[in-house]
Amino acid sequence: MSGETPRHDTELKAAFRYQRDRGDGAPRPIERPSCPSAEDTAREVREGTETAVGVFDACFKRIEAVEPEVSAWVHLAPDVGRAMAQAVDAGPHDGPLAGIPVALKDVIDTADLPTEKGTPVCEGRRPSADATVVSRLRAAGAVLPGKAVTTEFAYFHPGKTRNPYDLNRTPGGSSSGPGAAVGAGMVPVALGGQTVGSVVRPASFCGVWGMKPSFGLIPVTGVDPIAHSLDHIGAFTQSARDLALVIDAISGDDGIDDASTGQAPSQLVAALDRPLERPRLGFVRTFAWDQLDDGLDELFESVAEELGAAEVEMPHLFEATYNTHHTIFLAEMAFHRAEAYASQSHRLSPLLIEGIEAGMEISAESYIEAQRRAAEMRTELAILFAEFDAVISPCAKGEAPIGIAATGDPIFCMLWTMMGAPTVSIPALEGPNGLPVGLQVTGPHRTDGAVLRAAAWIGDALGVTAP
Amino acid sequence: MSGETPRHDTELKAAFRYQRDRGDGAPRPIERPSCPSAEDTAREVREGTETAVGVFDACFKRIEAVEPEVSAWVHLAPDVGRAMAQAVDAGPHDGPLAGIPVALKDVIDTADLPTEKGTPVCEGRRPSADATVVSRLRAAGAVLPGKAVTTEFAYFHPGKTRNPYDLNRTPGGSSSGPGAAVGAGMVPVALGGQTVGSVVRPASFCGVWGMKPSFGLIPVTGVDPIAHSLDHIGAFTQSARDLALVIDAISGDDGIDDASTGQAPSQLVAALDRPLERPRLGFVRTFAWDQLDDGLDELFESVAEELGAAEVEMPHLFEATYNTHHTIFLAEMAFHRAEAYASQSHRLSPLLIEGIEAGMEISAESYIEAQRRAAEMRTELAILFAEFDAVISPCAKGEAPIGIAATGDPIFCMLWTMMGAPTVSIPALEGPNGLPVGLQVTGPHRTDGAVLRAAAWIGDALGVTAP
Repeated sequence: MSGETPRHDTELKAAFRYQRDRGDGAPRPIERPSCPSAEDTAREVREGTETAVGVFDACFKRIEAVEPEVSAWVHLAPDVGRAMAQAVDAGPHDGPLAGIPVALKDVIDTADLPTEKGTPVCEGRRPSADATVVSRLRAAGAVLPGKAVTTEFAYFHPGKTRNPYDLNRTPGGSSSGPGAAVGAGMVPVALGGQTVGSVVRPASFCGVWGMKPSFGLIPVTGVDPIAHSLDHIGAFTQSARDLALVIDAISGDDGIDDASTGQAPSQLVAALDRPLERPRLGFVRTFAWDQLDDGLDELFESVAEELGAAEVEMPHLFEATYNTHHTIFLAEMAFHRAEAYASQSHRLSPLLIEGIEAGMEISAESYIEAQRRAAEMRTELAILFAEFDAVISPCAKGEAPIGIAATGDPIFCMLWTMMGAPTVSIPALEGPNGLPVGLQVTGPHRTDGAVLRAAAWIGDALGVTAP
Repeated sequence: MSGETPRHDTELKAAFRYQRDRGDGAPRPIERPSCPSAEDTAREVREGTETAVGVFDACFKRIEAVEPEVSAWVHLAPDVGRAMAQAVDAGPHDGPLAGIPVALKDVIDTADLPTEKGTPVCEGRRPSADATVVSRLRAAGAVLPGKAVTTEFAYFHPGKTRNPYDLNRTPGGSSSGPGAAVGAGMVPVALGGQTVGSVVRPASFCGVWGMKPSFGLIPVTGVDPIAHSLDHIGAFTQSARDLALVIDAISGDDGIDDASTGQAPSQLVAALDRPLERPRLGFVRTFAWDQLDDGLDELFESVAEELGAAEVEMPHLFEATYNTHHTIFLAEMAFHRAEAYASQSHRLSPLLIEGIEAGMEISAESYIEAQRRAAEMRTELAILFAEFDAVISPCAKGEAPIGIAATGDPIFCMLWTMMGAPTVSIPALEGPNGLPVGLQVTGPHRTDGAVLRAAAWIGDALGVTAP
C-alpha cells in the first residue's frame, strides 16, 4: 500500500543515506571490510555450513587489518576467543548467537579476560565471575575476541580509540571501542553501557545501529556501576534485526539486579517478524535543539516531514532535563567512585575528579528532588507519547567532532536515558562532511518492541542497508 | 494433630493473655464497650439483618462514650458519616466492608472531610479528591465517622490522644488516633501510615491487631508523604481476619503510585480460609534487643521457646539498621517538608524543625549509600528468612510509656519498615503493669499471606481473642 511508505521514497534514499564513495574531497571513510550479519552467520553455524572457528578467524583477520588505525580494543585474546569458538563447534551449537564474535566494553566483567574499566586504578584486574550478560552471551553461543575500549570509568576522559569514518575524530564515548569495532566492521555485535549517551552517541558517530533498551530490561549485574539509576546496557550492530537478536539473548530478570525484577526477556525478533507497518511517529526537538550543528536542524526537520512525524511540544517540566540528569548522575557517580577518590585520586583524570567533587557537593535534598522530578517526567512522557508508536529526534549535535581528546556531547541522549526509555540510533543520515549522523527513535519505558519496529520501518524507508 | 499446637497451650494462654479484670491494683483499662468484628457486621449488613445506619449509630454511641477521655479524633462528622451509611443501605450494599465504620489517620486525603495532617500549617485544608485507599473503602461499602489524630506531619510531635488502657500513657504514634480508636472499641477498623513504626507501635500499645503489609501493596496516592521510600499504609483491627478483609479491599496497583506498579490486590482472606498449620518460625532479637524494658527479654524468649521459633542470628550488616533508616528517613522528610520549613517554620514544632535541619545536612552520597545498604539488607533478609514462614520479634521496648508528650520508641519496627516487609502486631502479651505488649510477626517483602497466616496461627495458639 503506497500510503504506508514515505511520500518521496526514492528521493529520501538519495538525500539521506551515506555517500561513502562520494569521492568529492570530503574526509574519506577508512576501507571497511564487509562483516556479514550476525543473524545469517549464526544460522550458518547452526546449520553446519560454517564453523565458529571459521567465523572467528575471519573476524580476527578483519581486526588485525583495521585495529592499528582504529584502536578499538584494550585487550585482544585470540587464544581465548578461538578456544571458545572450538567449544561452540564441539557442542550442540544451537544458540541464537552461535559463533558470533562480540566486543565487550571493558566495564563488563569477564571471568577469562581482564576487566580494567579504562583506568590505571583497575590495571590487571581480573574478575572472578562473568557479568550476567556475558554468561548469557556464552550460553547463546557467542565468542569473545577481547575487551573493547571504554573511557575512564565510563565517564568522559577518553581512551585511544579513533572514529573509523575519520581517524581524526572521536568515535564518541563512553562505549568508544564497541562503537568503533562495529563501525569498522571488526565484529558484527558489541555491547556497551549508557548512563548519559554512551551507546546512542557512538552509534551515531560510527555509523552503526545502536539500541539501549528500557531501564532494567538487561541486568547490569557484573557491570561497573556509574550511576545506578541511569545505567543501561546497550548493543551495537549493523542492522535492526541483529539488535533484536542480541538483546533477546541477554535480557530479562536475573534475580540479582533489582532493576530487572519481573522483566521478561524481550521478544524483539518476534516483533520484527511481524510485517512492519508505517508507525505513527512523533518528532521532538527537545530542549537542546538550538545546540545542533549548522544545517542539522533543517536536515532533521526535512526527515521528520518526509516521515510524516507530528511535532510534539515538550512541556516546561522538561526544561529541567539537563539539571535533573546532572544531579542524579554526579551524585551517584561520586558515591560509586568514593573509594577510588579517597585512596587513588592521583590515578584519576582531572576531569573525573572534577565530576566526583561536584557530585560530593550535592545534598540529599537536591538529589531526592531530582529523582522525584525525573519520575514526574516519566509519567508525563508516557501520556505525551501515548498516541505514537515512537518518536524521532537527533542522536547528537551532528557529526563526530574533530579530535580524540573528548568524546562529544551527549545532550541529545540524556533525556531518554533518564526516562529509562528504549532508544535506537539508526545510521540513516549524513552530515556536511559526509560523515554518519544517526536518527534517534524512542518511546516510553517498556515500549521496546514498538520502538524497534518503528526504527526498522524507518531504516527501510530511508534505504539504510548494512554495508 | 498435637504436633501442630504449642507444647503447653493452656499454660501459655494463662501466662500471656491480657488480664483485663485482674483487680490487683495495676492500672485499670478503661471501660471498653464491645465492638463486633468487621467481618460479621459486614455480613449482617449484606444479608439485611443489620443496617449500615444501625451500625453507624451504635458506633457513634461508643465514640461519644469514650472519646472525651481518649481524644482519638481530630474531626468527627456524624452527618457525613450517617449520610454515607444511608447511601450504603440504599445501594446494593454488597461490598466486603458494607456498613463498616473506619477511622482514617488525618494524613489520608478525603474529599468530604478536612485533612489537616496534625499541623496548624494545614489548618482548614480540604483536599479536592480522595486518596486511593479512601475511594476503595467507599467502593467496599465502608463509612467514615471522621478523621483520627496524627502526630504533626506524622513525625514525632504528638497530638492529644491518650492510651485507652491507661489514660496517663501514650497510645503510640504517629497513627495515635487510629490505634486508640480501635483499642477503645470506637470503630472496628482504622487506617494509619508507617514510616518508622507508626502502625505496629500503636497497635502494640493499644492492644489491637495491626498490619503494615509489603511496601507498595497499598498505594499511597493521596496520602501525605513523609519519606517516600519508607511510607506504608497499614490497618488496625480486633482480629487477623479483619486485617485480611480490609487490606484485600484497599491493596493493589492504582496506576499512580509507582511503588504499587504490578502489585495485584492481596488475597489475605483466602490465605486465612485455608486451614492454618503450625508455621516454621524464626525468632530475631534484632540490634535493639538490649533496649527492651526490664523483664521483657525473658518474656519474649519464653514465647519464642513455647512457639518453637528458631533463633536467627542477624549478620553484621544489620548493625547499621538505625543509621541507615535514619539517613533515608530524615533526608526524604527534609525534602517533603522543605516548603513548610521555608515559609512556615514558626508553625512547626522544635522537634520537627530539628529533624528537618538534620535531614538538610545529609549529603546525596550518604543518602545513596544508605539506600544501597538498605537494598543489600533486603536481599540478605530474603536469604536469611527463606527457611521460615515468618519470624517473630518484639513490637516495642515494652508497654506504652507514661506520659503523652512523646509517642514511644519505634526502634523495634524500623528494620521491617526499611525492608518493606509485611509485619503484624498481635495483641498477645502483657507487660509488668498488665498493659498490652504486642508480638511482631514479619517476613521478607511480598510474603504477606504467609506472615498473616503465621500470625493468625500464633494468635490462636496464645489464646488471643477479640474483646
